[in-house]
Amino acid sequence: MNNIYIIGVGLIGGSLALDIKELNKNAVIYGVDKNEKHLEEAIELGVIDKKSSIEDLKNADLVVVSIPVDATVQELNNILDAISDATLVIDVGSTKEDICKIVENHPRRRNFLATHPIAGTEFSGPSAAIHGLYKGKTNIICEVEDTAFKLQEKALDLFRDLGMRIRYMKPKAHDKHIAYVSHLSHISSFMLGKTVIEKEKNERDIFDMAGSGFESTVRLAKSSPEMWTPIFKQNKTNVIKTLEEYINNLSQFKELMERDDFESIHNEMKDTNHIKQILKGIN
Amino acid sequence: MNNIYIIGVGLIGGSLALDIKELNKNAVIYGVDKNEKHLEEAIELGVIDKKSSIEDLKNADLVVVSIPVDATVQELNNILDAISDATLVIDVGSTKEDICKIVENHPRRRNFLATHPIAGTEFSGPSAAIHGLYKGKTNIICEVEDTAFKLQEKALDLFRDLGMRIRYMKPKAHDKHIAYVSHLSHISSFMLGKTVIEKEKNERDIFDMAGSGFESTVRLAKSSPEMWTPIFKQNKTNVIKTLEEYINNLSQFKELMERDDFESIHNEMKDTNHIKQILKGIN
Repeated sequence: MNNIYIIGVGLIGGSLALDIKELNKNAVIYGVDKNEKHLEEAIELGVIDKKSSIEDLKNADLVVVSIPVDATVQELNNILDAISDATLVIDVGSTKEDICKIVENHPRRRNFLATHPIAGTEFSGPSAAIHGLYKGKTNIICEVEDTAFKLQEKALDLFRDLGMRIRYMKPKAHDKHIAYVSHLSHISSFMLGKTVIEKEKNERDIFDMAGSGFESTVRLAKSSPEMWTPIFKQNKTNVIKTLEEYINNLSQFKELMERDDFESIHNEMKDTNHIKQILKGIN
Repeated sequence: MNNIYIIGVGLIGGSLALDIKELNKNAVIYGVDKNEKHLEEAIELGVIDKKSSIEDLKNADLVVVSIPVDATVQELNNILDAISDATLVIDVGSTKEDICKIVENHPRRRNFLATHPIAGTEFSGPSAAIHGLYKGKTNIICEVEDTAFKLQEKALDLFRDLGMRIRYMKPKAHDKHIAYVSHLSHISSFMLGKTVIEKEKNERDIFDMAGSGFESTVRLAKSSPEMWTPIFKQNKTNVIKTLEEYINNLSQFKELMERDDFESIHNEMKDTNHIKQILKGIN
């Protein structure tokens, strides 16, 4: 795969471009982005080689769709219309159900592979692209059986070369579980940041008191609203359910405090310390 | 200050011991701990030189009280009873109001300095002690005027040598603000961990989907319940208030989602991105 088209040259698409270029010196990376500044920046940073547009996708061996998930739903059929029969199209969005649904009847459905690489940082745009972002990370692939075998093979070769672990899931299960381990974390972090910032309005010195614990817990509140709003919208039902469970657990904790039941509070924390073993599994 | 007594040889006291030993090769570090295993471990690791007991504090130039805040409230007067007139006693607890209150009428109140170094990790025990933990970190000092001038001076020399920045606060203000930037983060993290673990009971594969964002947000859920239960208990009123505000913000976010008001959700996140600038100030 030498002609690589990255639609959306931000953190995810840009990092993929950097690694593909390193794996294959003959690859030419074309960038497509509605943000002209991002394209210029991506060329300057060496993230892409050339600017391009959707009209040129006939030339593509691989198209990576790395734009916000609402834009993916809007553009994916147009992208499939524009490619050649031999082109592999992958998306890398954080939701899978709506994206898989929108292309289910497209004549070139077999050119498409739905993926979700569990990788990223809280930063965005071409300058956030980094080498080796995907090494050792999980890539969730949905509806693999709906992709042409030869194109599956090409995609899996690429993911293996990037150092990724593969997990196969149904789109519905993906969206349900990712709401817990990713989408809810972002909301808990944003709302923690909001709660503390609201306080800070009157109390300027408060952040002098913040340490690395606070920093770690609110890190995701730096994330891009342009990317995350459509994710919450597409995964609305699942995200609301996780929020309800989270709010219930917080309210229960507050009630235990109000009742001075600090033995139960101790036990809640002790039980949740089990997260240590779970996180060891992630690393 | 050559004879240093560390009461509670865990992460905070142990790290302080390591740095003091490095700053002053003549220092002898005595460890006092109700946990005999921790004392043995601390000697093996070179965190302390010798085991000791509260009865020997007459010999001390400096006593560091680094035990859970309920134990500090219980023991601090006994510790002040046991020292000599020239001994400096500092505590390093995450609450300050109850601790300052318990010693206010002690005849040796002027031997005591109330501090809260904003430093730590999610780990605990002597093996968690690390060199340089305090470098560049903030140390909050309360009621400085109630400590004898010569002992203030000794303490400030030590904190300067450790590389710490000093902030002076009243105990009441400390406990109110620290509830936002530290105590609430711990609860949000514990309850996030709980919500996801509850889900996981039936769905074993869910943690394969977790990435660094989840890891960062639940990191504090690894913290010690033995240390944190008494903190929440002592700072109950302030912590409940922060929890109420946090739960309100989460509920409001959920209602915006239910109403499909994703424009407001976008704006909430955009506003909270301001945390980027704030966190730059922390580093």
